[in-house]
Amino acid sequence: MINKSIVFLGGDKRQLFAANAFAEMGFTVYLSGFDKLESNGDLIITDIYTGIVNSDIIVFPVTGIKDRIIPCYFSNKELRLSDELLELLKNRIVFSGKSQSIKNISKEIKIYDYLDREEFAVANALATAEGAVQVAMEEYEGLISNSRCLVTGYGRIGRILSSILNSLNAKVTVSTEKPDHFEYIIATGNKPIKTNKITGLNNYDIVFNTVPALIIDKKVLENSSPNVLIIDLASLPGGVDFEAAKKLNISAIHALSLPGKCSPKAAGEIITKTILNMLKEEFS
Amino acid sequence: MINKSIVFLGGDKRQLFAANAFAEMGFTVYLSGFDKLESNGDLIITDIYTGIVNSDIIVFPVTGIKDRIIPCYFSNKELRLSDELLELLKNRIVFSGKSQSIKNISKEIKIYDYLDREEFAVANALATAEGAVQVAMEEYEGLISNSRCLVTGYGRIGRILSSILNSLNAKVTVSTEKPDHFEYIIATGNKPIKTNKITGLNNYDIVFNTVPALIIDKKVLENSSPNVLIIDLASLPGGVDFEAAKKLNISAIHALSLPGKCSPKAAGEIITKTILNMLKEEFS
Amino acid sequence: MINKSIVFLGGDKRQLFAANAFAEMGFTVYLSGFDKLESNGDLIITDIYTGIVNSDIIVFPVTGIKDRIIPCYFSNKELRLSDELLELLKNRIVFSGKSQSIKNISKEIKIYDYLDREEFAVANALATAEGAVQVAMEEYEGLISNSRCLVTGYGRIGRILSSILNSLNAKVTVSTEKPDHFEYIIATGNKPIKTNKITGLNNYDIVFNTVPALIIDKKVLENSSPNVLIIDLASLPGGVDFEAAKKLNISAIHALSLPGKCSPKAAGEIITKTILNMLKEEFS
Amino acid sequence: MINKSIVFLGGDKRQLFAANAFAEMGFTVYLSGFDKLESNGDLIITDIYTGIVNSDIIVFPVTGIKDRIIPCYFSNKELRLSDELLELLKNRIVFSGKSQSIKNISKEIKIYDYLDREEFAVANALATAEGAVQVAMEEYEGLISNSRCLVTGYGRIGRILSSILNSLNAKVTVSTEKPDHFEYIIATGNKPIKTNKITGLNNYDIVFNTVPALIIDKKVLENSSPNVLIIDLASLPGGVDFEAAKKLNISAIHALSLPGKCSPKAAGEIITKTILNMLKEEFS
Repeated sequence: MINKSIVFLGGDKRQLFAANAFAEMGFTVYLSGFDKLESNGDLIITDIYTGIVNSDIIVFPVTGIKDRIIPCYFSNKELRLSDELLELLKNRIVFSGKSQSIKNISKEIKIYDYLDREEFAVANALATAEGAVQVAMEEYEGLISNSRCLVTGYGRIGRILSSILNSLNAKVTVSTEKPDHFEYIIATGNKPIKTNKITGLNNYDIVFNTVPALIIDKKVLENSSPNVLIIDLASLPGGVDFEAAKKLNISAIHALSLPGKCSPKAAGEIITKTILNMLKEEFS
Repeated sequence: MINKSIVFLGGDKRQLFAANAFAEMGFTVYLSGFDKLESNGDLIITDIYTGIVNSDIIVFPVTGIKDRIIPCYFSNKELRLSDELLELLKNRIVFSGKSQSIKNISKEIKIYDYLDREEFAVANALATAEGAVQVAMEEYEGLISNSRCLVTGYGRIGRILSSILNSLNAKVTVSTEKPDHFEYIIATGNKPIKTNKITGLNNYDIVFNTVPALIIDKKVLENSSPNVLIIDLASLPGGVDFEAAKKLNISAIHALSLPGKCSPKAAGEIITKTILNMLKEEFS
Repeated sequence: MINKSIVFLGGDKRQLFAANAFAEMGFTVYLSGFDKLESNGDLIITDIYTGIVNSDIIVFPVTGIKDRIIPCYFSNKELRLSDELLELLKNRIVFSGKSQSIKNISKEIKIYDYLDREEFAVANALATAEGAVQVAMEEYEGLISNSRCLVTGYGRIGRILSSILNSLNAKVTVSTEKPDHFEYIIATGNKPIKTNKITGLNNYDIVFNTVPALIIDKKVLENSSPNVLIIDLASLPGGVDFEAAKKLNISAIHALSLPGKCSPKAAGEIITKTILNMLKEEFS
Repeated sequence: MINKSIVFLGGDKRQLFAANAFAEMGFTVYLSGFDKLESNGDLIITDIYTGIVNSDIIVFPVTGIKDRIIPCYFSNKELRLSDELLELLKNRIVFSGKSQSIKNISKEIKIYDYLDREEFAVANALATAEGAVQVAMEEYEGLISNSRCLVTGYGRIGRILSSILNSLNAKVTVSTEKPDHFEYIIATGNKPIKTNKITGLNNYDIVFNTVPALIIDKKVLENSSPNVLIIDLASLPGGVDFEAAKKLNISAIHALSLPGKCSPKAAGEIITKTILNMLKEEFS
């Protein structure tokens, strides 16, 4: 793979960190849609055409594209995917997050979606969990140590987050429905409860929701102390009745896209790692 | 469920602890095949016929039966499943481990297999992991703290064991094939390697095998220091070439059935918990 | 002690949380120098004279006073310690941080200094350590997990902080001079080095200084990657050559008074706990 | 120090591991009082006179000597310290545990006591703590995970042991008298209580005593469940009324000298490390 060239088309700081990681491995790296940056070490900042023409591998942002526009955090100019450019992509190895957004425009390009990969999701869950702890530390006026935390859901994020909180000596309860999850939760030193047994939040200082369903509804909120801090990690619309929370004077934060915001370097390295894994599986 | 009666037919200390847990919850509990015990608190020690006749729920041992004989650690008499007894089972709720052994005799009895349940497997994995640490502490002349450990496999046992070793400040490497396992292993502070990259054990003080396949073969062993301690947790025939190890003067222990040996109380409670979950799901 | 009255004279959010804790235990609690607050549950907001006259116990802020002025975060008016008020203090139980500032004005008042207490220092070290992790999470673009951290000094803060970082799966090195500290550091899973062996910071992502001496001097900084993040926790002037860091483009943050800033609730509870311990020792 | 010679006079497996560590560093190493061993790699097994005459450094066992007899686990012959040998020691660097036992015979020999060193005590505490966990795992029929543990005393062993148990997800209570210990105990996620508030052991599954005073007396035992397991780590006579425990049918184990028994390799390395530290401080 070494001696190959790669171009990052748009995106934010995460792509920049990913680009750097590829440069460090010996790739020739182009950045298109990054003209706010004057120069960036070994990275070659260039227009989109030059970028694509010179590269074996094309990387679109985590968020994919919008119509034909590629989102660019580091450029004020519009980065647009013309038919000519689309044509060029056909002979190249194309990576993107939310790849459906590109497939909608052209069905002839084979796209590898790094966002769909399980290892991306797991590594992202770790970054999300650390980001959630950061938000809790910023918003909660006490200490995480010895605080009473509830984590709803025991998927990737719930599993990692509840372990981190336990390490920080919080008293952690985790909600789930599955009996075998109960045993994993116990095995990691936390306390399991059934999600449908959550009728109020009076016994918790901090609540982290990871379930994309209305778990923390009006009823639950009405049976909660106003001192509880709720951090919702579930993607829109989330799992908390935010309006009810506001009326009840309960702090509820919808904390989205934490990896990109809190740890863009880690988020970029996840992209790099996943693309490398996919390259190895497909082309070696 | 309370006010129900239950009989434990044979088995070892685990069944005794399970029986006690049921008695504490208010069940009327019979023990058949336990006549070495003179009396045991609230538990009623009786013959198999009386036990079954008086009980709503029947519990066979974790290991199932052998032909028609029920294994009994606490009895010198043979506990045999006659046709008459089999007939009685038909109207009762029957639990067993390795239930196929009973199904082989009669196809008309509905048996709930608690050994097949995921929560049983997870809780058993925790007990196995602690047992493995105990064996390591007993056999290794150094400390677990700062020892270099390899755990092969990242299934239930590998996952829990590698976390425990990390907690004890060992330097832990975990082998697996899956990229998403790699990320979980990293997220829990350990070092991942590909299982097929294990070519020797020179860099480890203690090796725990959890994979039921010949991972630690002659070649790997020939490329190992004689000081390494190998603990094989995989069921027969295990994942270690024990003969080669012996010739090379490498300590290799096949540590089987650890929950029953090292923590019969915990193992009994796992049986209780699993049976209760199954009763709740099926009959409420 | 219950049924006693206590007044908090000035201070910030920490005193407010401390006041609340006393109110919850059944004390009658006065707040003087808090007139920005309109009302505050059971707490009686009043002028300084009324506060002192009605109280058995007087609590000055953590920072003590400046000349005769009591610092007040929650008031725009000046809170001044007149001779008349000083006279009133003589018959009361007086607590303060930095009590020397009051002793300078009057030698006849017996003051119990809660800041001097070892349990205050230890609990404060925990709050400082969590605050330091928060700052690191906010400033570092990667994850704490698997980052390479250096903690200089193994006093109260170094001891607790290095354990927390280890729990978060950072790779932690701790510097100290004492051989027995080396063994404690090893026992908690971290790597010890001699403080005077720190000649550069190239091997670290994040450096936490806890030593009140110029450990991270120009020479050390010149031998460091510009990517390192330095968080200095030592009180003024700190242990980092901040000017040199600036010239070398190295991020160095002097993070002071973290408990009050990051976790005022916890900081307030520490005051409460310490005062209660002192009351018990002296008056029961 | 390299190119020096060293002799180990008697002792057990710990001295053998220490000797090996010195050999690995390039020392010429003699063993006297080890004639049960036929040969041992680079170590030269010899009589006591040859050993001393050829060595710059002399190492007596951890336990010192008894009258003039050096205890020898690996020899059936008596190893005696004659006047002639004592004379030879005067010009050599002599290390011993319990050095008073040698000082009683000759006041003219300068002896460095490695047992008295703080780093020895700390490293030994870690080995003792792991040994205590091993004993608990062997004797307790449940799991350490989620067991309710009491650790009495918060000295070196209490501090390390309570952290290890917490890591293993036990519910840990630690007893001490000092308010600042309380805060350290809380900071590490455990629950503090005052030692004199221990009036019974009904709430614990496993009790570890580290205090060399009769903490677990008859009264406390009478107020305990017979299911509790007591492991006394305090040196003779210990801190448990063993007779009362026996009468009450409570399992109480006096677990002494755990490092030597459970982890002789680690114990030997502690000796090596401590001697090296002392050599560096005194002779460089």
